[in-house]
Amino acid sequence: MASTTPRDPVHNNHYVDYVIRYNFGDNDIVQTTEQLERLLHKLFEIGLQTEVRQGDETSLLVFVRAARKKSLQRAVYQSRIRDWLYGVRNTEPEPESSAEPQSESERLRVIYHMMTVPKEAGGAGITPKHGEWKNVDSIFPLHDEEMNKQCMKDWSQKTFLSPEDLDQIRNIFGESVGFYFSFLQSYFRFLLFPAIFGFSCWLLIGSFSIVYSVVNCLWCIVFIEYWKRQEEDLSCRWQTKGVSAVREKRREFRPEREIRDESTGEIKGVFPATTRMCRQLLQVPFALLSIIALGVIIATCFAIEIFISEIYNGPLKSYLVFIPTILLSALIPTMSTVLVSVATKLNDYENYESQQAYDVALTQKIFVINFITSYLPVFLTAFVYVPFASRIVPHLDIFQVTVRPFVSKEVATKSRTEFSMDPDRLRKQVIYFTVTAQVVGFAMETVVPFLKQRLLRQYKDYLRKKNGKVESDSSSEEEESPEALFDDHPDETKFLIRVRNEADLSDYDVTDDLREMCIQFGYLALFSPVWPLVPVSFLINNWIELRSDFFKICVECKRPWPQRAETIGPWLDSLGFLSWVGSITTAALAYMFSTSHEGPGGEPTTIKGWALLLTIFFCEHIYLIVRYAVRAAMAKLEPPNVRKEKTERYLVRKRYLESTVGARSSDDETDVDEKEDQSEQLSQLTRDTLEDDARSWATHDTDPAERFWMRQKGWKESSQVGATIIKTLKRDSNAKKQQ
Amino acid sequence: MASTTPRDPVHNNHYVDYVIRYNFGDNDIVQTTEQLERLLHKLFEIGLQTEVRQGDETSLLVFVRAARKKSLQRAVYQSRIRDWLYGVRNTEPEPESSAEPQSESERLRVIYHMMTVPKEAGGAGITPKHGEWKNVDSIFPLHDEEMNKQCMKDWSQKTFLSPEDLDQIRNIFGESVGFYFSFLQSYFRFLLFPAIFGFSCWLLIGSFSIVYSVVNCLWCIVFIEYWKRQEEDLSCRWQTKGVSAVREKRREFRPEREIRDESTGEIKGVFPATTRMCRQLLQVPFALLSIIALGVIIATCFAIEIFISEIYNGPLKSYLVFIPTILLSALIPTMSTVLVSVATKLNDYENYESQQAYDVALTQKIFVINFITSYLPVFLTAFVYVPFASRIVPHLDIFQVTVRPFVSKEVATKSRTEFSMDPDRLRKQVIYFTVTAQVVGFAMETVVPFLKQRLLRQYKDYLRKKNGKVESDSSSEEEESPEALFDDHPDETKFLIRVRNEADLSDYDVTDDLREMCIQFGYLALFSPVWPLVPVSFLINNWIELRSDFFKICVECKRPWPQRAETIGPWLDSLGFLSWVGSITTAALAYMFSTSHEGPGGEPTTIKGWALLLTIFFCEHIYLIVRYAVRAAMAKLEPPNVRKEKTERYLVRKRYLESTVGARSSDDETDVDEKEDQSEQLSQLTRDTLEDDARSWATHDTDPAERFWMRQKGWKESSQVGATIIKTLKRDSNAKKQQ
Repeated sequence: MASTTPRDPVHNNHYVDYVIRYNFGDNDIVQTTEQLERLLHKLFEIGLQTEVRQGDETSLLVFVRAARKKSLQRAVYQSRIRDWLYGVRNTEPEPESSAEPQSESERLRVIYHMMTVPKEAGGAGITPKHGEWKNVDSIFPLHDEEMNKQCMKDWSQKTFLSPEDLDQIRNIFGESVGFYFSFLQSYFRFLLFPAIFGFSCWLLIGSFSIVYSVVNCLWCIVFIEYWKRQEEDLSCRWQTKGVSAVREKRREFRPEREIRDESTGEIKGVFPATTRMCRQLLQVPFALLSIIALGVIIATCFAIEIFISEIYNGPLKSYLVFIPTILLSALIPTMSTVLVSVATKLNDYENYESQQAYDVALTQKIFVINFITSYLPVFLTAFVYVPFASRIVPHLDIFQVTVRPFVSKEVATKSRTEFSMDPDRLRKQVIYFTVTAQVVGFAMETVVPFLKQRLLRQYKDYLRKKNGKVESDSSSEEEESPEALFDDHPDETKFLIRVRNEADLSDYDVTDDLREMCIQFGYLALFSPVWPLVPVSFLINNWIELRSDFFKICVECKRPWPQRAETIGPWLDSLGFLSWVGSITTAALAYMFSTSHEGPGGEPTTIKGWALLLTIFFCEHIYLIVRYAVRAAMAKLEPPNVRKEKTERYLVRKRYLESTVGARSSDDETDVDEKEDQSEQLSQLTRDTLEDDARSWATHDTDPAERFWMRQKGWKESSQVGATIIKTLKRDSNAKKQQ
Repeated sequence: MASTTPRDPVHNNHYVDYVIRYNFGDNDIVQTTEQLERLLHKLFEIGLQTEVRQGDETSLLVFVRAARKKSLQRAVYQSRIRDWLYGVRNTEPEPESSAEPQSESERLRVIYHMMTVPKEAGGAGITPKHGEWKNVDSIFPLHDEEMNKQCMKDWSQKTFLSPEDLDQIRNIFGESVGFYFSFLQSYFRFLLFPAIFGFSCWLLIGSFSIVYSVVNCLWCIVFIEYWKRQEEDLSCRWQTKGVSAVREKRREFRPEREIRDESTGEIKGVFPATTRMCRQLLQVPFALLSIIALGVIIATCFAIEIFISEIYNGPLKSYLVFIPTILLSALIPTMSTVLVSVATKLNDYENYESQQAYDVALTQKIFVINFITSYLPVFLTAFVYVPFASRIVPHLDIFQVTVRPFVSKEVATKSRTEFSMDPDRLRKQVIYFTVTAQVVGFAMETVVPFLKQRLLRQYKDYLRKKNGKVESDSSSEEEESPEALFDDHPDETKFLIRVRNEADLSDYDVTDDLREMCIQFGYLALFSPVWPLVPVSFLINNWIELRSDFFKICVECKRPWPQRAETIGPWLDSLGFLSWVGSITTAALAYMFSTSHEGPGGEPTTIKGWALLLTIFFCEHIYLIVRYAVRAAMAKLEPPNVRKEKTERYLVRKRYLESTVGARSSDDETDVDEKEDQSEQLSQLTRDTLEDDARSWATHDTDPAERFWMRQKGWKESSQVGATIIKTLKRDSNAKKQQ
């Protein structure tokens, strides 16, 4: 499937498969030299060719390629055997001699594994930045610049990416990144409907419409279930189904004790699940801590903001309104960073055995933090400020204590009766989060790093030039141009500059991008009835997002080594969770803000607690029932690639079974022939003679059970006996009837 | 695993594996005789030995055994190959010549498959009561009477069945029945805790205690999750994990059209999933119909009952109170039967492809009916009668219209002010459903059929004797005793009487028993806070239930052919659903009936709608969170057999991988040796000479990319170049520092 024959993209990159950046800044010469030798020898042992070039001032670049065809073939074959044993592949792989990587990503993945897998499993066991390899700074493949440019150009001209485009991404960056782009693409395509529908609602009905809320919830369910199917389809198309079963051990895993496995005879470190579970209980205080720490900051800033914008009436008001925003922008990221580092420590302490489990657990923790920072402000406005404003706001008088020194009380605040809730605050906030924040996010994520990188590069060049000049002043052996600082062959200069630049780039982590999309989806699921144009904004944003993310990977990050994946991982659960919570908030919003409930002050005074709760109760359970139904329906529709895969599986089975059944029937025929003759001889016997036979046997000492089976010889005799019995009984019953 | 060597239980049964009851009552002699011949020939073809004996007046008994060892071996081997291909077995089965059934149930299952599987798949294709085999009434194995007696004796003396006892059940009746008994056993064991706790609560706190409610909900969660683990463990122990993937086609399946599969080249009937889904939508009106039909009956009887017992005061009251009970007992089963037959028709119409899918769908439909009949009465009392009695009861005056003709109004009813709700009604009802109804159920299920069967047998004998007498009057050839009516060999008389009796027994369906347990669990989950002795009653009931069910299978039913299963199927979902609903009802009951809310009339007048709903909302979501946590925790604890199975799987993989890695490293060594020599020669070269080499190559017309790789020959050279670069750069930076 999807077996595009590999092009020849490495040519541009001088056939380089991987570049290893080797740091020698801190250590002494003898040690680093020895280690370098060991590195090169290891690489040679597993069949990789190496070339060494100078990196920057404190590093070497080791270029690696799989030159020996046999080694690569063996590695590919071995990886396929492993896949087959773990059930990722259906078919036994072709023999070693004809094993060829089917795509560039497979080639790169296999080579990466050759380098990083421990020696026992047949690799070189290189672990960047860890243990004996701590001088190895990074291992990365080189960008295929022409291809990247081609893709960027293509995609800027079309609305939807084709499946082939997604295959292309997968071929370049591996399945993990491929899944992200597929998700983004599906999400974008699915947004079309709510965008159009939301726009119509905005024009015709306005905000908080029940119709829009219901459609929005339904859309969330269908989208999530559709994506699950899509994921399955893609994992079949990309042959990564079940790939999560092939787990790699985390090297940071510290076993509690070592035990010898009785059955396998291996000594392996174990860490009891119960101990880990106890440690995981720390997540509860952590979640509480996050909620309190972030909640206090957000609530305080929120209160200050309301005080200033709606109560305070003193001097400098137009400047003071920015205080809460500034406070928020300063405090929230700081606190988030602190909390994320606590989460990471907690996660390390939980001591997971596989990298995958570690990532999932960390993702969940970070999701909690993100959930609070992203949605709590809107929650506060919708469910605290709006219904309780008139009761809470007067208590904000406490802030007057800070104001009093400067202005008299009368001037400073509006009188209490004067205060009126700003009914548009919720909408403004949602617009801020779904439009402004998205644009700012795009700038922070793509534009700023790009500019920073350019500036940094220029600054580095400037430094080098300056140093060069200083040196050329003191010793005139060195040449003038910055490139000449490095002792490069003129043929390679251009290539090496590019490689050095790439080595300086940051690593790409697909998790961050997925998180961004997940949080975005949350706004849609939770609050879009407030402002039905939310999906329109996201639709536009995501068209750009897809391209800019690709740009980011190509230009601002090292090329990631192609990781396999069969799903977008824990984010899928997060989407499901957000959509569920959405069914509650949407119901609450729709009930609270339908115009009929509005009180005189704009706030919904006539809200009835029991009616609100009943609405939520019913909406949530209807949501769950619909989700169950949609899930059941979706489960029955097979995506094309899944069907294809099943057919393949079926064919394998059929071939096997036929061989056994075939052998069997040919065998049987001879058997039948033999017995046929025998029963032919017996067919003339009458029932009486047979019974006589039986009686004569009975006198012998045979087992009575065996004798039971000896009364009728062969099936023909049985048949005759049966026919006789039928005839007799029928006659009897007929006789009775006649009587 | 669990590979108890098969005893020799067939000896008692004259080595009979299966008995086929062949009816010839309705058809003419020629046709039935022909068909019998075809049946016997088919059985012979697949390698089974047959003996024919007379059954009752209109049937023959065909005794079948797998006499030819080779045929059985082949069938066993083939079944194992199939299991292996579908992933049920980890290890490739041993060769055909050494394939032996590991247990009696495997032997019987394989033989059953030989007889029933279509000819294409290597069987005889006998389909009882269907198509060309409609004269074949049933195919059943014979009970192993000694073993059954032994088990019954053993178990009546112990409290808990051991895992070996469960293995025994599985060996006799197959995994499907084994799972039922394991479930019953686990459920019984788990009931111990709530029984003790409930008893203490009953003594110390009384009904509707919040502590008991919370503990009860928690217990439900833990039990269900524990059972899921247990199920997995058992399916590993019994080697049936993944067995649901091996599906058999339903013969009633009617494809919409036939298409030729492009890839497999087979013509197969398809029925589009979308059509089926449309048909499944009929389930919604069906569910509504059930709710309305049963709801009206139950509500009406309920209203009549309240009217008679609490308002009516006229003559004959002590007799009239039985009217609603009689009405209910008459109407509910009738209506249920009608609804079940509608459900079956609906299910047939949905046209499932596999028997499994059909059963699951039917089970779901029947669960809806059962849910209504079992729980609606209690729901009505708890959530309609208790809170709204004072408002609704006065309207029951309408029944007076029927009463008025007979008695004057004054006498007939209590005055309205006199009426007071019976606060104990709910408790009485729960006690009725959890004690009385269980006892009645036991009687109806076990005792009554047993007595009926005995009487029927005596009646049949009487009839025969009478007929015999009539005949012996008319024709003196026949003997007097009833056995003599059959032309049996004296050795076999006793055995054949037993077989004839067994052939008259009804079929056993494990679904009914599972449903009974599931409904019972529902009372515990939904209403046990009303009367904390519910688990005590169930504990006692289930000790008896387990033994009586075994008795029922052994004595009142034909021995079922051993079906495989890896779970208790859709009932697991039903349990989860009941436990979820339980979290809602328990919260509502605990809130409504905690004594503080009781109004003057005994009814809880001070119930606040919003407080009730808030309680439900929080309890339900806490329930869901706890369930999530328990599920996550349970998922990490591996049951012993699952671990064992994983180890086995791992060993298979390891053996495979080692063989490839082993081959590889031995290969490599020669490679390394070769290259080592080569690089040895080069080790004396200095960097400068190498660069010279490179420059000389550059003048040639080689590919610049290839030239890149030719600058350093072998890893040793790379290492030397690297060392030189490090040395130079270190020197430079040191020089700079000194400056």
